[in-house]
Amino acid sequence: MLKIALIGAGRIGKVHAANIAHHGRAELSAVFDVDQHAAESLAAKYGAKAQQDLDAALDDADAAMICSSTDTHVEMIRRAAEKNKAIFCEKPIDLDMAKVNACLDDVKKAGVPLMIGFNRRFDPHFRALKDALSRGEIGKLEVLRITSRDPEPPPPAYVAVSGGIFRDMMIHDFDMARFLLAEEPVQVFAVGSALVDPEIGKAGDVDTAAVTLTTASGRICQISNSRRAIYGYDQRVEVHGARGLLRAENHLENSVEVATGAGFRRAPAQNFFLERYEAAYLAEMRHFVEAVLSGKSPKPGIEDGLRAQMLADAAAMSLETGLPVRP
Amino acid sequence: MLKIALIGAGRIGKVHAANIAHHGRAELSAVFDVDQHAAESLAAKYGAKAQQDLDAALDDADAAMICSSTDTHVEMIRRAAEKNKAIFCEKPIDLDMAKVNACLDDVKKAGVPLMIGFNRRFDPHFRALKDALSRGEIGKLEVLRITSRDPEPPPPAYVAVSGGIFRDMMIHDFDMARFLLAEEPVQVFAVGSALVDPEIGKAGDVDTAAVTLTTASGRICQISNSRRAIYGYDQRVEVHGARGLLRAENHLENSVEVATGAGFRRAPAQNFFLERYEAAYLAEMRHFVEAVLSGKSPKPGIEDGLRAQMLADAAAMSLETGLPVRP
Amino acid sequence: MLKIALIGAGRIGKVHAANIAHHGRAELSAVFDVDQHAAESLAAKYGAKAQQDLDAALDDADAAMICSSTDTHVEMIRRAAEKNKAIFCEKPIDLDMAKVNACLDDVKKAGVPLMIGFNRRFDPHFRALKDALSRGEIGKLEVLRITSRDPEPPPPAYVAVSGGIFRDMMIHDFDMARFLLAEEPVQVFAVGSALVDPEIGKAGDVDTAAVTLTTASGRICQISNSRRAIYGYDQRVEVHGARGLLRAENHLENSVEVATGAGFRRAPAQNFFLERYEAAYLAEMRHFVEAVLSGKSPKPGIEDGLRAQMLADAAAMSLETGLPVRP
Amino acid sequence: MLKIALIGAGRIGKVHAANIAHHGRAELSAVFDVDQHAAESLAAKYGAKAQQDLDAALDDADAAMICSSTDTHVEMIRRAAEKNKAIFCEKPIDLDMAKVNACLDDVKKAGVPLMIGFNRRFDPHFRALKDALSRGEIGKLEVLRITSRDPEPPPPAYVAVSGGIFRDMMIHDFDMARFLLAEEPVQVFAVGSALVDPEIGKAGDVDTAAVTLTTASGRICQISNSRRAIYGYDQRVEVHGARGLLRAENHLENSVEVATGAGFRRAPAQNFFLERYEAAYLAEMRHFVEAVLSGKSPKPGIEDGLRAQMLADAAAMSLETGLPVRP
Repeated sequence: MLKIALIGAGRIGKVHAANIAHHGRAELSAVFDVDQHAAESLAAKYGAKAQQDLDAALDDADAAMICSSTDTHVEMIRRAAEKNKAIFCEKPIDLDMAKVNACLDDVKKAGVPLMIGFNRRFDPHFRALKDALSRGEIGKLEVLRITSRDPEPPPPAYVAVSGGIFRDMMIHDFDMARFLLAEEPVQVFAVGSALVDPEIGKAGDVDTAAVTLTTASGRICQISNSRRAIYGYDQRVEVHGARGLLRAENHLENSVEVATGAGFRRAPAQNFFLERYEAAYLAEMRHFVEAVLSGKSPKPGIEDGLRAQMLADAAAMSLETGLPVRP
Repeated sequence: MLKIALIGAGRIGKVHAANIAHHGRAELSAVFDVDQHAAESLAAKYGAKAQQDLDAALDDADAAMICSSTDTHVEMIRRAAEKNKAIFCEKPIDLDMAKVNACLDDVKKAGVPLMIGFNRRFDPHFRALKDALSRGEIGKLEVLRITSRDPEPPPPAYVAVSGGIFRDMMIHDFDMARFLLAEEPVQVFAVGSALVDPEIGKAGDVDTAAVTLTTASGRICQISNSRRAIYGYDQRVEVHGARGLLRAENHLENSVEVATGAGFRRAPAQNFFLERYEAAYLAEMRHFVEAVLSGKSPKPGIEDGLRAQMLADAAAMSLETGLPVRP
Repeated sequence: MLKIALIGAGRIGKVHAANIAHHGRAELSAVFDVDQHAAESLAAKYGAKAQQDLDAALDDADAAMICSSTDTHVEMIRRAAEKNKAIFCEKPIDLDMAKVNACLDDVKKAGVPLMIGFNRRFDPHFRALKDALSRGEIGKLEVLRITSRDPEPPPPAYVAVSGGIFRDMMIHDFDMARFLLAEEPVQVFAVGSALVDPEIGKAGDVDTAAVTLTTASGRICQISNSRRAIYGYDQRVEVHGARGLLRAENHLENSVEVATGAGFRRAPAQNFFLERYEAAYLAEMRHFVEAVLSGKSPKPGIEDGLRAQMLADAAAMSLETGLPVRP
Repeated sequence: MLKIALIGAGRIGKVHAANIAHHGRAELSAVFDVDQHAAESLAAKYGAKAQQDLDAALDDADAAMICSSTDTHVEMIRRAAEKNKAIFCEKPIDLDMAKVNACLDDVKKAGVPLMIGFNRRFDPHFRALKDALSRGEIGKLEVLRITSRDPEPPPPAYVAVSGGIFRDMMIHDFDMARFLLAEEPVQVFAVGSALVDPEIGKAGDVDTAAVTLTTASGRICQISNSRRAIYGYDQRVEVHGARGLLRAENHLENSVEVATGAGFRRAPAQNFFLERYEAAYLAEMRHFVEAVLSGKSPKPGIEDGLRAQMLADAAAMSLETGLPVRP
């Protein structure tokens, strides 16, 4: 049985808490949150202790699940590593690469497992795509195309502290690109505009972006991001190989089609990321628990978190300079 | 080169005329129509003679293409058979089975080839389905389902002389059922209602009908007909076999999908039978010309025309009596 | 809080137990099963009591959830009704209509709510279809078509005691037909064959069946059943109205498409009914709990259970006699 | 009636000849080809004169249809312009922009209409997409994505004289981008690799390429090209606007779906560009004939040919330098 201390009882913390409770070999031992009320309410639901003292929360646990705000991640990772706990940390580790590197050095020294919350790797549909690719169904990968469009833009206040679209949103796609390309990108070229909301532009960010990655062997990856998709959360992956094409399509709200004089209409795509990736969050937690209990390194790990952030930084620099950048 | 006399210069006659002109080994030699103006106009377009004298039209030709009104078919078939011409006749041969039988006896005696215009057998899509079935892709056929829905009901005046929905419309589906079942139905059960247009009910017909066919070996076929489909001409076939399913879906007006807050919408189905079955009419003519030129019997032939009409008659009797009928 | 005694700890009982545990306002108070071990194991999982004494199980509960074998349903319903408990009973109530009628009279006299487990009414997709129909998106219903094909046939031993395909399998479709037609069928015509497994034929049943229902206003419903669908559990509904078409398509195992020289291939349909109807079972339980707690009659109720069985009986008689039957 | 002299009786010349013959207000007056036999054979088919003398071919015509090899286009355009004929010229005008500019100056001076054969603008499906965009169905365009993948690579000998993938293949996509963006790109960034056939790499070209275009207002266009798609000719367009998404999907060889234990499989995409764009070539010719007869400028015209080639040149330079290029 793996006892897990949850740090951060917000939206994503609640998802993880439910999945821990659902897992037969894990239990939620403690909930820590600066908002004491949130901690208590979540802890009560699953028979865990609400802790105001982080040390106490960690001492009693085997693993730390870090879901607090991004600016606290590095500190939380350090404290859990010092106590030799297995760590799960939501992405990104930190917006500052220097801090990320220092932190990861500490984790390596401590020798504790660290898993980064790139949940999409665990989506059963992307996983089925990856499996088909690994089985060689379409031969060697040549071209990859990733589409991520959020249903609606975040508030400008969030944008201002988010680290920008590449570090906050496209980082998931950079990880997916690495996951599928099976080769590190050697060049990043980014373009972007504030087309959805001029306030996002004023906050120094873009809301519509396209990135081209290339690898040493000549593989090409195109990523398309937008902060708006009124037909639902748009999450698609398309892979071209020497012998064919694999693509994962959007998930619609229901399976009903209505045909009238206007044509054949199906439902919008599932709109909410927690609904779209419900199975992914569950599988991700299962992987973490099982890896830690069996003494294996959970994946995606330290290196994966680092590499995705390097691509995000390179994209940000490419947008700023107008030039392709080596990550 | 096969010289063809066209009898009937109406809508379907024009389609056949164009396809004859398009065929490298056939030519339109004469056009006969009670409407002399229609005959002249169509003949002029393809360099044929407009004939007011049916004998003259036939004498100069190798084959007769009969596209006149249904009540004239039997007479036209007899006259062409007497002159030993190959015959293509639009369905149905006649609404009166006694006349049909007598006529077909004459044709058999004359020994001329006769092809019935069940164009759907030549649709490349249904043909691909049939080919997959014949190749054994889904094993032995067990269940067949055919959907035919016209975009809109015909005028009540037409309904009154049409012979009813089973002989006028579902006869195509009876032929398709025979084509795919590869076994003769031994029982026909029909239900029907006038839901689309009460005038059709007053004219003694139904506009919405469902038929169940069964064969001696236990195969089951469900047919669904309606005189209305506002999303376009609905033409679908679904076949279940021991090892899977084959289905031919509708053809949409274009390949564009639009996604908005209301969902994902595609175009209506092609609305007009001449557009939907354009390729089928062309392939049908090609088959007729090539079969006749090479001395083979074109298919569907006499027997096919007869059998489909027997099923239509049985369905009409089933609707009238409320009982299953042996055709 | 609604305390529920579960009667029958088999496959479907386990599903309901989990959904009760998941519901915020219900709790599993007792589990009764002739297999004491099964009762104990399930009870332990959710903190309920395993009871060997049915009376004790019922006394402590507000409601009875009857998931035992069909031949015990009537007895269990009577005992729960005598103790004035709200009742949820899996379909069918009994294979013998006389017993069903007597039992339902008892329930009516006792005045307790009784809900029948026609889970498909609660499937979010069929529900979305029904809602669109109720909103008038396609106008008045004219034609209904229901497809249900099980992934594979049950063992012949099960078939022998199942009551036959109409009472065991198509009963769900009869309920769906009533749910959507919003008008009682006045005629049932059935055909059927043993094409999938000759042993099923020897057991006196069919494995491939088609039924045509008609209503007084002329609505037509075609149902197609088979005990085999190797491409997955085939569950489709298609409704034609005066202004269009609604259809609910199958749910595929994943959203990945692979394109090779052989074409574009998507995953098989979800194969297992518990996976396909997972959300339906959850919603069904939610409805039962909320209706009982708020003093409303849960639906589908007594009348619905009765009517569906009358249609099943009529279909069985139609198959036997070869004639259409008034239910 | 527009009399048209066809220059070049090759594959595409034959398509245009058939479409001219099919048009009610145009006729093929002459066919000129360096291969006298090809000219005669095609001329005979449509009752035109096979001319060995270009002047004679042009003198007798109202318009010249230039389908000869690319290196002769400029010369043919000049000769037709001198004789004051309306001109249709297949793309590209020439691989050398200096020659193109000089030639187009001559055309402008002569004041004759010149249409460039960007046939995809006339595809009914892309046209439907463009119309929906113009009607504002998805609001203002923000992101455009174009996929073009040929079924198989051309022979290396062709590649060597083709001008490279951007001028030979992607030029169609550059024109489509301009057609849909309704704003000129101000930056072009290209990447490319020889992944399909190393011989193409040795010939100094790439066979897999991705281009990012940006416009002054911040619109982003991603183009993906490959010389191989074993699932058929892959031609897709996707447009994101402020209020939704429009996409045109591939055209499959037939409408049949087969479902087995392996899943649901549809046919490959139509494999041959003449089949996929059959309707586009017909509509293109109709537009040319009608524009010239009514004294209007056919579109796409001189400027469109020029602009698409400028984008192709910029892409080639971007690939060479590794930097974004202003066209």
